[in-house]
Amino acid sequence: MATLGLVEYKDASPEVRAVYDDIMATRKTDWINNFWKALAHDPATLRRTWQSIKEIMAPGSLNALTKEMVYLAVSVTNQCGYCIASHTAAARKAGMTDQMFAELMAVVGMANETNRLVTGYQVEIDPQFRTS
Amino acid sequence: MATLGLVEYKDASPEVRAVYDDIMATRKTDWINNFWKALAHDPATLRRTWQSIKEIMAPGSLNALTKEMVYLAVSVTNQCGYCIASHTAAARKAGMTDQMFAELMAVVGMANETNRLVTGYQVEIDPQFRTS
Amino acid sequence: MATLGLVEYKDASPEVRAVYDDIMATRKTDWINNFWKALAHDPATLRRTWQSIKEIMAPGSLNALTKEMVYLAVSVTNQCGYCIASHTAAARKAGMTDQMFAELMAVVGMANETNRLVTGYQVEIDPQFRTS
Amino acid sequence: MATLGLVEYKDASPEVRAVYDDIMATRKTDWINNFWKALAHDPATLRRTWQSIKEIMAPGSLNALTKEMVYLAVSVTNQCGYCIASHTAAARKAGMTDQMFAELMAVVGMANETNRLVTGYQVEIDPQFRTS
Amino acid sequence: MATLGLVEYKDASPEVRAVYDDIMATRKTDWINNFWKALAHDPATLRRTWQSIKEIMAPGSLNALTKEMVYLAVSVTNQCGYCIASHTAAARKAGMTDQMFAELMAVVGMANETNRLVTGYQVEIDPQFRTS
Amino acid sequence: MATLGLVEYKDASPEVRAVYDDIMATRKTDWINNFWKALAHDPATLRRTWQSIKEIMAPGSLNALTKEMVYLAVSVTNQCGYCIASHTAAARKAGMTDQMFAELMAVVGMANETNRLVTGYQVEIDPQFRTS
Repeated sequence: MATLGLVEYKDASPEVRAVYDDIMATRKTDWINNFWKALAHDPATLRRTWQSIKEIMAPGSLNALTKEMVYLAVSVTNQCGYCIASHTAAARKAGMTDQMFAELMAVVGMANETNRLVTGYQVEIDPQFRTS
Repeated sequence: MATLGLVEYKDASPEVRAVYDDIMATRKTDWINNFWKALAHDPATLRRTWQSIKEIMAPGSLNALTKEMVYLAVSVTNQCGYCIASHTAAARKAGMTDQMFAELMAVVGMANETNRLVTGYQVEIDPQFRTS
Repeated sequence: MATLGLVEYKDASPEVRAVYDDIMATRKTDWINNFWKALAHDPATLRRTWQSIKEIMAPGSLNALTKEMVYLAVSVTNQCGYCIASHTAAARKAGMTDQMFAELMAVVGMANETNRLVTGYQVEIDPQFRTS
Repeated sequence: MATLGLVEYKDASPEVRAVYDDIMATRKTDWINNFWKALAHDPATLRRTWQSIKEIMAPGSLNALTKEMVYLAVSVTNQCGYCIASHTAAARKAGMTDQMFAELMAVVGMANETNRLVTGYQVEIDPQFRTS
Repeated sequence: MATLGLVEYKDASPEVRAVYDDIMATRKTDWINNFWKALAHDPATLRRTWQSIKEIMAPGSLNALTKEMVYLAVSVTNQCGYCIASHTAAARKAGMTDQMFAELMAVVGMANETNRLVTGYQVEIDPQFRTS
Repeated sequence: MATLGLVEYKDASPEVRAVYDDIMATRKTDWINNFWKALAHDPATLRRTWQSIKEIMAPGSLNALTKEMVYLAVSVTNQCGYCIASHTAAARKAGMTDQMFAELMAVVGMANETNRLVTGYQVEIDPQFRTS
């Protein structure tokens, strides 16, 4: 179980409920996933984290699907099991097809490979890549 | 300098030149960046790595820009300096604006943060996120 | 199960038992956790690892609680499930409250985020931060 | 140079200057380090990141020195050069002595070692470490 | 379960079966492990990944056992549970004894420790280590 | 420069000199690399780290070359610049040829790739890979 346990909606303070309500309204769902329930023992972190994610993940010059796939790519690189499960679900909800998932994984795998080849071979940055 | 040195075009074997030529033709550039010149001491790895990247990075259900931004997101997560420089350049060439870059970094940063919050709080995966 | 299995006290050689006894005496507990039982198939590594941890984790200019929280911060960053579970328990035993845990996780999360923002933006080190 | 360049105070918009002013007032310094100048091209991320750090790093049940040392421990684990330089400076300013630094590094090194031994030996979590 | 499910031999297309057959022939086994069955939903990635592994893991100037132990060392460093389980099995099949495993883990642990000590102390590369 | 500076032989205490002497005798060299000079401000860590490395890297059921290549593989995976430079030199001294280096990097790159593919596809461990 989560280190500090999970705070269910019925047991939550008004401050926590307000965040839960905003999560459900923003995501158009009727349930709260465990991540938020685990953070809820620290209402300041719950509020700050949710506000940041809400702001960052809102569509801008990148659309919601692209942002979710990037989130998944990072989570895979970091080998975070929970995050992979939750952001695979979120990316699918945002429109990721099986084929898009497969292409995404291929890029993530390749980047992780060449990141090591470059560093392992001690390759110097080309002048053309330097931002003057 | 790179561990095994760099193989310049004029010094390259026909096998290596063929890869260099294909890289330049595919990318519509007239130069080869250091990564490939460093790998060229091992022609089998040079060829295999280029073939894989060419196949993986070709537009499919994800477009070239999305793939380049994912590549950059992974490289940032892994803290690979060369890869960040080269894929920032590649993503810009594929159309990434400054605003898109800034949004991309915000997502990468946030994902790296919540990856640790989730794992640190020992949060269990919600049944809803499990694949069947 | 652990790759080489677990060596229980009753089955342990005198050399391994001596380490187990010292672990229990130092930690004032009456049981040995699985990590040590797994290492015990390699008595040299068991002994060396325990001696190092005993020396490093002893209170010095940093107290035991601070050291345990730093250990937990590293384990969370590395996404090591066993280590998070065991060092959360150890930190609590050393005095970590729920509020301290929550603040610790907030710092760990934030550091993981800004580590990537800094590197992703290719920020150069300020001269003021350089050590002479 | 930083990917999007650095925004100097004299060239900053009022919105960015307000953040810069708050950073200097909070930290009691008269200069802004490159990280913030690099983020300033994205005022929303600049503001959000600063607000989060200001809130998280304020003394609470953990004091400022402990928080800075945890920040440094994470940065070392992630091998972030800029972050190590800047947070070594910040931790020293908060009171970290050379001896405390040395003990901190010893703990960070050891944690990174045992994180891999535990996972490499495929050790199962002891029931005693599970939360409920 | 795997994100896209597993493709069993009896349900596989001729293209996928050809890869499965080559895996079993090359490895002299009569079953396919889940990794390949999971990739099989993306036949291009299945084929490319298998061809790369087949080529890379074939004995060359490094023998098969050394290559498998290196694969395991990387997987442990990255904390990849599946990979540790599968490559421990593969390394044993290639001749890794319990003693070799224990020595391998000791090296992996130590490297992970000193990687952080070096970076944490901000040590500059000795001129003697630079490649010309 | 290194955070605490470097301790040169002529300025070292007898305790530190004894370690330096043992390093040079064991490695059959006449100089000390910066890593040890940086650690020397903390003689306990200097001594413990050297003793551990000396013990771990001594030929056993794995020879010195294999151990050095594993050390390099881990350092590349962790993207530690200093460690890659120093252990490339050490591995070469132990007999690593250019061809062996190239094969080593190919394995390291591939392992980093498939580590992410496995985790990204959420592949379950095959019963055959489980230890007992």
